[in-house]
Amino acid sequence: MLNVTMLGTGGMMPLKDRWLTSCIINSEGHSILVDCGEGTQIALKNTACRLKPIDVICITHFHADHISGLPGFLLSMGNEGREEPITIAGPRGIEQIVRSICVIAPNLPFEIKYAEAFRDNDIRCGNIEIIPFEVRHSTECVGYSFVLPRRGKFNVEKAKMNNVPMKIWNSLQKNGEVEFEGKLYTYDMVSDGERRGVKVTYCTDTRPTQNIVKYAENSDLFICEGLYYDPQKLDRARKTGHMLYSEAARLALQSGVKEMWLTHYSPAVTEPEEGIEQATGIFPNTKCGYDGKTVTIPFPD
Amino acid sequence: MLNVTMLGTGGMMPLKDRWLTSCIINSEGHSILVDCGEGTQIALKNTACRLKPIDVICITHFHADHISGLPGFLLSMGNEGREEPITIAGPRGIEQIVRSICVIAPNLPFEIKYAEAFRDNDIRCGNIEIIPFEVRHSTECVGYSFVLPRRGKFNVEKAKMNNVPMKIWNSLQKNGEVEFEGKLYTYDMVSDGERRGVKVTYCTDTRPTQNIVKYAENSDLFICEGLYYDPQKLDRARKTGHMLYSEAARLALQSGVKEMWLTHYSPAVTEPEEGIEQATGIFPNTKCGYDGKTVTIPFPD
Repeated sequence: MLNVTMLGTGGMMPLKDRWLTSCIINSEGHSILVDCGEGTQIALKNTACRLKPIDVICITHFHADHISGLPGFLLSMGNEGREEPITIAGPRGIEQIVRSICVIAPNLPFEIKYAEAFRDNDIRCGNIEIIPFEVRHSTECVGYSFVLPRRGKFNVEKAKMNNVPMKIWNSLQKNGEVEFEGKLYTYDMVSDGERRGVKVTYCTDTRPTQNIVKYAENSDLFICEGLYYDPQKLDRARKTGHMLYSEAARLALQSGVKEMWLTHYSPAVTEPEEGIEQATGIFPNTKCGYDGKTVTIPFPD
Repeated sequence: MLNVTMLGTGGMMPLKDRWLTSCIINSEGHSILVDCGEGTQIALKNTACRLKPIDVICITHFHADHISGLPGFLLSMGNEGREEPITIAGPRGIEQIVRSICVIAPNLPFEIKYAEAFRDNDIRCGNIEIIPFEVRHSTECVGYSFVLPRRGKFNVEKAKMNNVPMKIWNSLQKNGEVEFEGKLYTYDMVSDGERRGVKVTYCTDTRPTQNIVKYAENSDLFICEGLYYDPQKLDRARKTGHMLYSEAARLALQSGVKEMWLTHYSPAVTEPEEGIEQATGIFPNTKCGYDGKTVTIPFPD
């Protein structure tokens, strides 16, 4: 299962009652932080999430409202005693940007590894696969799918057929592979094919694109920006590289997701719920995200 | 008169109920922001202060809790339509550091001028003179005195004696100097010597030093850090370049200030008031600063 918690849901600037858009994805004791604007470390304190398990920070793009909280966040991780390396993933140039803004956070007690979207493959956090994809904003911007795969069921007949010794069955289920008496045994020797896992797709700061539809396909949860709900704001959304609720809803519909949460509201949208019908009229299972909104998504069955 | 408002009073990291140490000094429609940690722009929204009149930002040093909110703060000033230049003052290297962290805040609609302490003289905001002085921390750090001078009383006898035409008296009082019929008249031709103005001295992130006593001398208000009140924390304060309440109080006593406000409490100090006697036992007119604490200091008389 995968836990998702929205730390903030605001765009552009932090407000007294709405933190900047940010999210925690967690599974089996490993957490991913998506974006880190000003105040994200305080927003986190308002939830059940903790700094300690955050192993990966995914940055969508380099606008201040999505990254300016990073130096303070990393310092607080250090103050909490973190020593294990963390990975920071993001668009092209992520390392230079992080180094530049972290000139005020020298001497961190842990190593930072960098993962550049579309250059570095196999970005993961524990068992969660992190899949970046291109979106369309006023600057280079990345969306992310988070996939927690699920192993196939244990199949006794298959294990016997492959002559897998019974005494390593448990260990094989737990570890995926086991070497025993000079021979390597792998989990596929004892299992049916992989089962459907859990998939969450996240994108903010983008116009709607077919690439989003492709990557969001069949997600259990689609977290998508909706800067405005008022149809009259379409021109403004187009000019600034953002979306209306209705545009997000069409993406959700086309990609066949189970549920959508809206986020990244304009400071001018004081009551996000007031416009919800702009989205539910198109994709009924839309929910307005809010700071602290959380869900545990179990494996299907 | 000078208005002083504490935006935050916390050290090291922003807490849910305490913003990072920051302060606004304001007079005659011109404001100075002192330090800008993560969340300072939100803290400001909780007060009667506004972004618009901020013409100068004084940075004490380059630790993240004192400067990391700057990119977002400047962007918000831009969003509010600021076009006039602002001045950012700070220790040696202020321009390089601000440029580095503001890589995520490009294209600001106003110019930033820089004033490096001890290199650039005559730093001011409206009529407020800004006087930086050295303090002693784990990195180069600057304290500031803010002085609002006050002109002498208008002296009719002196004006007549100096043959200042009566029709320019008003204008001279208002503007300080007037050219009339080819001759320059200055305010000292019509006034007694300068009267006592208002002085506020501000220092955080420092051990106590005689230099602080010198610059704080006769301040109407002395805002000083007190990271801890517990005398047993003296070693820790020494190691990290900070002060106990009692050390701040001794500075206040020695420099003959009228009143002291404590600030920059450790996150471990959950109730700053509990330790106030550690300071009032030495300097009775000590007050615990708190987020939003504000005062208007009139000219004496």
